[in-house]
Amino acid sequence: MANIYDLAYDLEKGLRESEEFQALKNAYETVMNDPSTKQMFDNFRDTQLNLQQKQMQGEEITEEEVNKAKQVVELVQQNEDISKLMEEEQRLNTVIGDVSKIITKPLEDLYGEEQQ
Amino acid sequence: MANIYDLAYDLEKGLRESEEFQALKNAYETVMNDPSTKQMFDNFRDTQLNLQQKQMQGEEITEEEVNKAKQVVELVQQNEDISKLMEEEQRLNTVIGDVSKIITKPLEDLYGEEQQ
Ligand SMILES: [Ca+2]
Ligand SMILES: [Ca+2]
Repeated sequence: MANIYDLAYDLEKGLRESEEFQALKNAYETVMNDPSTKQMFDNFRDTQLNLQQKQMQGEEITEEEVNKAKQVVELVQQNEDISKLMEEEQRLNTVIGDVSKIITKPLEDLYGEEQQ
Repeated sequence: MANIYDLAYDLEKGLRESEEFQALKNAYETVMNDPSTKQMFDNFRDTQLNLQQKQMQGEEITEEEVNKAKQVVELVQQNEDISKLMEEEQRLNTVIGDVSKIITKPLEDLYGEEQQ
């Protein structure tokens, strides 16, 4: 019987070497290595995080904040390096979601079978 | 380069065949195969879920409900089959938490390194 941790490290290595992860890494580094693009991306992430936190805490979001957020989104969508990064993030998230479904299947089978 | 999905299925198989998963499966089946123990366990889970939902929706939890929940917990703790099941759930959750940390390490490394 193979050791679970060895199998997990094999998977980690496979993810790290995958075309999807390497493409994300390249897209991320392209954004990070251009100071003005990096600033735009950081600003976008900060704005998103800030609005999410306000929503979770039930704080009111002003019309001005909504408009500012929309402007920031429009700005990053026009930047091809950031668009590429967001696309690659989406692609890797899909792979990781699939992996997560595969490895939680034993538990799902166990807890599912009695409930029918 | 190994295929990510093949590696994920290898890990899934390893988890399914692991001592930890087999022990959880046995503990779960012991509880499920004894109708009075199963009822006690279902009652415990329903009570927990109900209180969690009320908390999340900001509803008030009455003193009567708190006392009832405490009684249900005391009851299941005295049942050795349910205690064993909860112990095995905890043990497998630790393994799955470790696996999750291992396989998300590439992303953590990527997004972590630029933020220092
Ligand atoms: Ca550029
Ligand atoms: Ca018994």
